[in-house]
Amino acid sequence: MISEKMKPLVNNNSAIRAMFEEGKRLAAKYGAENVYDFSLGNPNVPAPAEVNQAIIDLVKEEDPVFLHGYMSNAGYEDVRRTVAESLNKRFGTHFHENNILMTVGAASGLNVILKTLLNPGDEVLTFAPYFVEYGNYVRNYDGILEVVSPNTATFQPNLAEFEKKITSRTKAVIINTPNNPTGVVYSAETLTAMADILRRKQEELGTDIAIISDEPYRELAYDGVEVPYVTKFYDNTVICYSYSKSLSLPGERIGYLVIPDEFKDSEEVFNAAVIANRVNGCVNAPSLMQRVIMRCIDCKVNLEAYDRNRNLLYNGLMECGYSCIKPQGAFYMFVKSPEPDEKAFCARCKEENILVVPGSSFACPGYVRISYCVSYDQIARSLPGFKRVAESYGLCGK
Amino acid sequence: MISEKMKPLVNNNSAIRAMFEEGKRLAAKYGAENVYDFSLGNPNVPAPAEVNQAIIDLVKEEDPVFLHGYMSNAGYEDVRRTVAESLNKRFGTHFHENNILMTVGAASGLNVILKTLLNPGDEVLTFAPYFVEYGNYVRNYDGILEVVSPNTATFQPNLAEFEKKITSRTKAVIINTPNNPTGVVYSAETLTAMADILRRKQEELGTDIAIISDEPYRELAYDGVEVPYVTKFYDNTVICYSYSKSLSLPGERIGYLVIPDEFKDSEEVFNAAVIANRVNGCVNAPSLMQRVIMRCIDCKVNLEAYDRNRNLLYNGLMECGYSCIKPQGAFYMFVKSPEPDEKAFCARCKEENILVVPGSSFACPGYVRISYCVSYDQIARSLPGFKRVAESYGLCGK
Repeated sequence: MISEKMKPLVNNNSAIRAMFEEGKRLAAKYGAENVYDFSLGNPNVPAPAEVNQAIIDLVKEEDPVFLHGYMSNAGYEDVRRTVAESLNKRFGTHFHENNILMTVGAASGLNVILKTLLNPGDEVLTFAPYFVEYGNYVRNYDGILEVVSPNTATFQPNLAEFEKKITSRTKAVIINTPNNPTGVVYSAETLTAMADILRRKQEELGTDIAIISDEPYRELAYDGVEVPYVTKFYDNTVICYSYSKSLSLPGERIGYLVIPDEFKDSEEVFNAAVIANRVNGCVNAPSLMQRVIMRCIDCKVNLEAYDRNRNLLYNGLMECGYSCIKPQGAFYMFVKSPEPDEKAFCARCKEENILVVPGSSFACPGYVRISYCVSYDQIARSLPGFKRVAESYGLCGK
Repeated sequence: MISEKMKPLVNNNSAIRAMFEEGKRLAAKYGAENVYDFSLGNPNVPAPAEVNQAIIDLVKEEDPVFLHGYMSNAGYEDVRRTVAESLNKRFGTHFHENNILMTVGAASGLNVILKTLLNPGDEVLTFAPYFVEYGNYVRNYDGILEVVSPNTATFQPNLAEFEKKITSRTKAVIINTPNNPTGVVYSAETLTAMADILRRKQEELGTDIAIISDEPYRELAYDGVEVPYVTKFYDNTVICYSYSKSLSLPGERIGYLVIPDEFKDSEEVFNAAVIANRVNGCVNAPSLMQRVIMRCIDCKVNLEAYDRNRNLLYNGLMECGYSCIKPQGAFYMFVKSPEPDEKAFCARCKEENILVVPGSSFACPGYVRISYCVSYDQIARSLPGFKRVAESYGLCGK
């Protein structure tokens, strides 16, 4: 009964489902507290208290017909203006409300902009390791995702290969910084070099190529590292933002697109994106949450909690002799597998009731992703298990 | 820069935008209280008080990591079970949580099921007059919307033409009852006859044909009329439900799909629909609103307010000599234009600062849609204008 396009998705999904079921099986067998599930990117730090207060205040103060009602498909104008002004203040940009489109999270934002831009057969580039859903999003609009192989020395993008892969069919490149799964932040040098290549290629090929910057982890950066604002490097940039991690609201589905004036045909692209947001069935971003964002525009989650987790896990793994670039952002560590087949390493971890995701799920075999958006305690309790696994591989701790 | 598929949508959108701008222009010129805008389907009856109370209680009682967090892409299991049990109690069905998929409103639900079922070139039937977005939703998945011409005597579907239009490519039929724009409720006789035709055609053609029942207006029925539950008439039925009108939460984007066990390949279709909900970028229906639905499962908006509006407008228009089937549901009246070109009639109404939507926007020229989800007062104040228009056409009041 289901469509041909859905069939591979359903078949592929059973692997993820199997992992989920395995976690439940282990928890039932050994007790949930003895299973160390590092497989999910579900924030465990609560939303700031201001968010819940804003919800209560809004419900008490606002007319329900307004608060829960339809607005422009782009979102409330005052909310969009508040977002624009906040970005301008933080990044020295000059956005206005008609650069901001409120979306049902960044995942929906990515779909909206891809629907707006892609013709069938258009190519979209991205850099391994990458969030596997990008392929599904691009295929939704009959585009082709082309993957640039990873630069495992730094996990900054492999720009030499990137340049070679740009063709006359290249319509966009999706970047993700701070990065899932590596935690790497793309440097200003990286973005400058990437923008130079794209401008050169646009001129050479006579085409327009968009950067689509997926930024759910923008606010999760450590050690004072700066996450450069991509629109300042390259005109044809769209930002896909989400409050899922920055305010710990992943279930609420609230985020926005930034389509700057400098983007080619900006006004037409913005209008088309608003229509895409409507006809894909979202209609608008959830209304109450839009109003919450307006009141909580300067709120932040407790970043120290993630930072403590990061240091505990990183130091613990280093002591065992594992190899990993210390992440500067997000809440993931991308650890080198002690054996070439990282799925075997995952299986070895599972014997210690430790669940991690194989890098091949991010088009980067030989590594595993460990999500540290879990309790500090879970990390502490898991370290002896990580140590026994390391010992079984003869890794040398420091 | 925008895709070929988006271009006609952008061009077509300017007509709707022009109407919206015209409304704003009139309001600025004559004062908002002297402009009678009947063009929008935005509920003016507030959400029941229980909804706001549930929001406050949830925020105070629940762990924010749970309340605003990810859950299964299908929605919280207990919410889905509550919805299933409520339907079972009301309609004598036997649904369980794995028949219910929480969605970002019915518009998203329609997209999810169309993405799940349609191959390029598949035909989807619907009955004029119909909600114009159906065409966009079907084209999102490269399907073809085939429209059955209206039966203007009753605005029940034209089943003779329907049967003739079913081909081997027909994958689904979208129905909408209570209907936008006519307010007509499909009778049990209609649904029985439609199901008989579909079963006969399925056997004859060796295909499977789904009924997709778009039901945002299910709870808005007057005069004690029963809105039959479609799954009881035909196995291959999917229900697309929304709380936008039933709880006046249109901005919050909350609804659900029902995929019954009796649907062909039900389990596979449900699993595929959950994946479609994820990869289209919605990921899940907004989490707080899901929890609200669970607590407000038996709440209702103030239907009497709409009913009073309905009677005031209907009687007022009848007194002027207009012609209209008295709607049994939803909050629209579909009035016969006194001249064949209903756009000219709309223009004539606009001279009285009355804004109504031409029936050609619903593939049914010769009629106009009047939304009565406005204040009672607006209807009362508009009636003299409607009368003057009637007189200018020489209509005979009763």
